[in-house]
Amino acid sequence: METHLFGRLTKVEVARRRLLAAATPTRRVEEVPVEKAFGRVAAETVRAPRPVPSFARTTWDGYAVRSADTESASAHRPVELAVVGEVFAEQAYSGVLHRGEAVAIATGGAVPHGADAVVLFEEAERQADTVRVRKPVSPGDRISRPGHDFPRGSVLTRRGTELTATALGTIASCGVPKVRVYARPVVTILPNGNELLSPGMPPKPGMIYESNNATLAAVVEATGGIAQTVPPLPDDPARIEEGIRQALATSDVVLATGGSSVGERDYLPRILPKLGTLLFHGVAVRAGKPTLAARVGDRLVVGLPGHPTSCLGNMYWLVLPALRRIGRRPGPGWHEGWATLGSDAVAPSPGLSTIVPLRFERGRAYSTFRGSSIITSLAGATAFAMLPPGRRIVRAGQRIRVCLLDPPLGPGAAS
Amino acid sequence: METHLFGRLTKVEVARRRLLAAATPTRRVEEVPVEKAFGRVAAETVRAPRPVPSFARTTWDGYAVRSADTESASAHRPVELAVVGEVFAEQAYSGVLHRGEAVAIATGGAVPHGADAVVLFEEAERQADTVRVRKPVSPGDRISRPGHDFPRGSVLTRRGTELTATALGTIASCGVPKVRVYARPVVTILPNGNELLSPGMPPKPGMIYESNNATLAAVVEATGGIAQTVPPLPDDPARIEEGIRQALATSDVVLATGGSSVGERDYLPRILPKLGTLLFHGVAVRAGKPTLAARVGDRLVVGLPGHPTSCLGNMYWLVLPALRRIGRRPGPGWHEGWATLGSDAVAPSPGLSTIVPLRFERGRAYSTFRGSSIITSLAGATAFAMLPPGRRIVRAGQRIRVCLLDPPLGPGAAS
Repeated sequence: METHLFGRLTKVEVARRRLLAAATPTRRVEEVPVEKAFGRVAAETVRAPRPVPSFARTTWDGYAVRSADTESASAHRPVELAVVGEVFAEQAYSGVLHRGEAVAIATGGAVPHGADAVVLFEEAERQADTVRVRKPVSPGDRISRPGHDFPRGSVLTRRGTELTATALGTIASCGVPKVRVYARPVVTILPNGNELLSPGMPPKPGMIYESNNATLAAVVEATGGIAQTVPPLPDDPARIEEGIRQALATSDVVLATGGSSVGERDYLPRILPKLGTLLFHGVAVRAGKPTLAARVGDRLVVGLPGHPTSCLGNMYWLVLPALRRIGRRPGPGWHEGWATLGSDAVAPSPGLSTIVPLRFERGRAYSTFRGSSIITSLAGATAFAMLPPGRRIVRAGQRIRVCLLDPPLGPGAAS
Repeated sequence: METHLFGRLTKVEVARRRLLAAATPTRRVEEVPVEKAFGRVAAETVRAPRPVPSFARTTWDGYAVRSADTESASAHRPVELAVVGEVFAEQAYSGVLHRGEAVAIATGGAVPHGADAVVLFEEAERQADTVRVRKPVSPGDRISRPGHDFPRGSVLTRRGTELTATALGTIASCGVPKVRVYARPVVTILPNGNELLSPGMPPKPGMIYESNNATLAAVVEATGGIAQTVPPLPDDPARIEEGIRQALATSDVVLATGGSSVGERDYLPRILPKLGTLLFHGVAVRAGKPTLAARVGDRLVVGLPGHPTSCLGNMYWLVLPALRRIGRRPGPGWHEGWATLGSDAVAPSPGLSTIVPLRFERGRAYSTFRGSSIITSLAGATAFAMLPPGRRIVRAGQRIRVCLLDPPLGPGAAS
């Protein structure tokens, strides 16, 4: 056993930007029915192939009339019109409405040619084949003209935007049954370490249960990706390299956890340069210094620390923006804001940035950090702050810039 | 064709509460692997079957020592200890550490019996079989005691909470491979109306494309439910009733859209009382008055208006809280807050509440409502206000209570 030291550490912001720059937005596209496309990212700008409505529709139950016929109508001297037809919603009156005529029409029905207004049922008095109108109507009354909702050629959704309920509704409403969306990014999580047991296996002295599969898969799924998990590999460089190569064949991103530092058994720093271009090794951040990344063609391999808090913290800060870029989702995956610290936050080294997970209580932010190996360090955290190097203590009461996670690291933020 | 009038309208808040009270939280439970459980609702309170860590672990690379041996150590008079073994992470030192001994140990390794502190590699000087320590260490230094992360019996997640990345990580880290979660609620959407065409079919005069399948399915999926969609049924009471009965066999909720008013062809008000207990018919809200609901055993049937804006508005305000309750998700599906109106909002009738979809621009809220048949009424809306009856205009500059949707009705809220 021997220990090595990191060379020059890469500033956390530089590491984040390098990973982001190396992330290739996916070009894989799928076609999915509008009923199944919620939350997916549009791979095309959808324009309306026809106006909506595509014909003049009435917005109420009533009588389609020529408004000019009703000009003189009053309670004392009602106008009497001949009812020449009835139009249910799906029908169209085949003829043309002439002077002195009315057609009974249900909400949503096509307004007959010649008619230019609709008299409400409640404001008319039906008598066998005639109807009495006691109030004048104006041209366009209770009629939705073609294109009133949106004209032909309207942009219903733009390429690269997340599909919402309303966007999908507008697409369906002009008859488009499917929408082209970007494929979900596939992320394989590949833990390594002789000390790792898969959950469910019997406990063994000196061994611990692997938990990064669960936390990283959650972040991947929450980001619209597909997470593939692999049982932990032993500290065997050939098997780890083979595992990464296999994963690369089916993945946009491979997240190898553990073995990312500079110790004798940390094989990732030796494997990654063989596979592609090393982007960085060693990040000036606590927790999470032993992190490295490589670009392999249009794919990424990231080696994350095995400690659960370091692993998940760097997953959010470094990997999430890149993963969103691959999946064509806008933004880094958090909203920036300001918060007032409820208690002192300690930055342990003037040379390192510090990632501080935060929970909120009565409007103030409190650090939940208890140690990088302590997974409950993140329980209840819904945001984090990245404190810059060079300051050892940030005092309670100070305003700090925070990143509000979406989805949150811990419980308590949803609903 | 004849027109009927609604009887007494049910206040919107009363309708919402009745539907919520009639919603039966699901009792169906599934067991899913921790890597697949993100966002699901825990159907059990998970307690740690063992402490984490389950043995004393070192948190750094170094030498496990008896701290008492280092008491007198200084730069000038280092203490020399015999290195009697090496412990990689997954191993355990079989013997007991005696006075004057040290064991080289890697991060995460089990601290040998007898040792009570770890000296950092960097602060020790190895010489063949001995190591020189130049600084005293205190008991517990760089050791994570059993249960330091969390003790045996700790509550890792409570029944009824949404599973987050961290909760799943804690569950995995004490060896639990699966978690029992509530089944996703199944919602069948069943449009009816002779005028409705499925998207993708050729256009026909007088016919419109069905879009509520797309919008309602989006809300269901975003709420963690499973949406089943059915092509539009014609205005045939027997077929609609049969469709609802069939849907009820496989669904927690049936959302029938269209045919919910009081016209000749509005069959839902005649069908629903045959199936179960009518909860209300006619809601004092604009848009969305023609809405009704029935409880059928532990299931719900809701008849929503066919107009897309009325339909989606009532889906949010009336159905979403009930759907979340069935799926055991806390909260109504929105966050309440206050906003300042950017322009006047008009409440059309003193007897009706008004649901106003809102978009935000430079910190002010603007109504996006253009008419209940106009689906673009909701484009860009990320919140809504429910204005109480009895006030015709709410002026620009006024503060109003708003419901911020999660997920939003329209684009622009995410990231």
